[in-house]
Amino acid sequence: MTEFIPPGTLFVDLPSPLPMKRGGALYGARAAYETWGTLNAARDNAVLILTGLSPDAHAAANAGNPDPGWWEAMLGPGKPIDTDRWFVVCVNSLGSCKGSTGPASVNPATGDLYRLDFPELSVEDGADAAAHVVRALGIDTLACLIGNSMGGMVALAYLLRHPGGARAHINISGAAHALPFSIAIRSLQREAIRLDPQWNHGQYDDTHYPESGMRMARKLGVITYRSALEWDGRFGRVRLDQATQSPDRPDDEPFGLEFQVESYLEGHARRFVRRFDPNCYLYLSRSMDWFDLGEYCMEKSGDSDRDTRLGLAQIHVDKALAIGVHTDILFPLQQQQEIADGLRAGGADAQFLPLESPQGHDAFLVDIARFGPAVGQFLAALPAA
Amino acid sequence: MTEFIPPGTLFVDLPSPLPMKRGGALYGARAAYETWGTLNAARDNAVLILTGLSPDAHAAANAGNPDPGWWEAMLGPGKPIDTDRWFVVCVNSLGSCKGSTGPASVNPATGDLYRLDFPELSVEDGADAAAHVVRALGIDTLACLIGNSMGGMVALAYLLRHPGGARAHINISGAAHALPFSIAIRSLQREAIRLDPQWNHGQYDDTHYPESGMRMARKLGVITYRSALEWDGRFGRVRLDQATQSPDRPDDEPFGLEFQVESYLEGHARRFVRRFDPNCYLYLSRSMDWFDLGEYCMEKSGDSDRDTRLGLAQIHVDKALAIGVHTDILFPLQQQQEIADGLRAGGADAQFLPLESPQGHDAFLVDIARFGPAVGQFLAALPAA
Repeated sequence: MTEFIPPGTLFVDLPSPLPMKRGGALYGARAAYETWGTLNAARDNAVLILTGLSPDAHAAANAGNPDPGWWEAMLGPGKPIDTDRWFVVCVNSLGSCKGSTGPASVNPATGDLYRLDFPELSVEDGADAAAHVVRALGIDTLACLIGNSMGGMVALAYLLRHPGGARAHINISGAAHALPFSIAIRSLQREAIRLDPQWNHGQYDDTHYPESGMRMARKLGVITYRSALEWDGRFGRVRLDQATQSPDRPDDEPFGLEFQVESYLEGHARRFVRRFDPNCYLYLSRSMDWFDLGEYCMEKSGDSDRDTRLGLAQIHVDKALAIGVHTDILFPLQQQQEIADGLRAGGADAQFLPLESPQGHDAFLVDIARFGPAVGQFLAALPAA
Repeated sequence: MTEFIPPGTLFVDLPSPLPMKRGGALYGARAAYETWGTLNAARDNAVLILTGLSPDAHAAANAGNPDPGWWEAMLGPGKPIDTDRWFVVCVNSLGSCKGSTGPASVNPATGDLYRLDFPELSVEDGADAAAHVVRALGIDTLACLIGNSMGGMVALAYLLRHPGGARAHINISGAAHALPFSIAIRSLQREAIRLDPQWNHGQYDDTHYPESGMRMARKLGVITYRSALEWDGRFGRVRLDQATQSPDRPDDEPFGLEFQVESYLEGHARRFVRRFDPNCYLYLSRSMDWFDLGEYCMEKSGDSDRDTRLGLAQIHVDKALAIGVHTDILFPLQQQQEIADGLRAGGADAQFLPLESPQGHDAFLVDIARFGPAVGQFLAALPAA
């Protein structure tokens, strides 16, 4: 297994040792990032983007890499995250396989890949690594911290652990703690990988690779990233054209693919499985289950919702926007409402914005017609520092 | 592998050959059923219950089997389905492993189990088998046909293919055609079984058994049978007590179970996997994906929703009730609305009843406080024939 690092990726060496929240430390670790726009002289126009589980730091085309990025429509001159005004940084998650140190990186202590010797990874560790990148770029306070999905969790940990780290915050389809439905889904995804004999307790290589487990995990992911409503209109009950069926899935295989929706999932899975390291997937997935801002509540009651609200209220930003969509079953709308309410209790001018997007959890990647104006108007209204 | 037939199960020999909708035929097949109450002299007080994918015919305790059944609270003297008034019949689905002939039954042509030699199974085949049971009991017209979940599909096929078969119909969390989200979920469940090397194209036995695949399939099922809302209150983020962890899942297993919700799924899966035949699961699961009442629309337009409505309108019953719950992600509420609208277009006095049950698709099994009165009042108001 190798890492998958886009061309033009930049790196920051992280402090060594880098202590990890749940114990252990990383030595000689690094964080991968990319930037767009120009940091002004006052160093107060920086916007940091924290990503979901799988994206790399290449959010959009830039000088180092002209290929379109995963948020190309949102980021650039005149776009909602306007790089004519903002200096934008996107950091690849610690624990990922896309440039930042993770289980697929070489462990300097052994010269071999970390694999399962990588220390237990928390959302908070990712937040600390991202904060190191920001400081290394000479930035004390972000103009705005934007986090999507898992990145929404990382962003909340960032704001809590690095007070004064940002004046404003946009939390997109994020959550202040994991709820049992999403834990159950992620647990099943991890089980699919672990049950694949080729996973072999993390000791796979390119020839002995947990392809089936990763494919199952990704399919289950895609099912929960999208929405039933969208699929009703998109696929309905349309059958596969026999001629377009995959050659290694012959028509006569019992219980083989038959409907377009099955082929769509298969295609998604095939594109993903060899481009994301299975051990990294396991570590990042588990970190989300563990995340709970309620841990930071000063007087814990055991009432998870209350503790989470009080944990959120310890975050101090001037302005915040929490966006979600009605059709998100993985990070449901009440979790973004909870974030807005909690940040408001912490003194922020915080807005909750539910969008009528049919595309489910991943709507922020595709429904630019709704997310673009929401993000753009919030950023445009931010005062100069 | 064996079948799992409750004590006291009764059988009807099906016509031999029994032609199957998608081709082929069964020879010497039988259907399993149980009854409660007494058929009156006019033979007009019969209520037939058609089940979801996995239940057997033992819906409630009776003389042949005093053990509680899977719908014990709904069925009995003075209960919502009042056996003091109604003669109640429950039929085990054709293709199941609980008494009716299915892939785990002996193929009389070979003396071996059918396994994948069982002909392709359709929802319609199950409907025809159930209709044979009813006729064998000397009943021409049911007072009411009740179908739950998959049984709701079978019931619609029954009413369409056997005109005059019932005066009234209760469709509970059913659907007139499968939609892509539920197809995707079921496809993934089948893939989990098929990917298990122990499945071995259906040639497993008790020692070489696709335990892992069945466990994955069942967990994914349970996730979609319940609701995120229910689990938030029920499990929250509560951790497993170390002392109660399963001995074969030691604490030090990487990525092992940690949260109560994971243990709940594991327990459900372990109770299920050795009590349902994997090949039967595959056949019944696929039959639901194939089901589409739109096939019976006389002038097909290619618009699946329209064709389904027109297919439904070809069903003629006097009174109908379609019940669903807001939290059902597998057979979402609009599918029960569609059933009520379609049956009304066919001339029925049809009511759509959405219930505010937090328990998701399986609410009809557990939320008797809501489902009991709904079913009971509908049945109580039915006139004598």
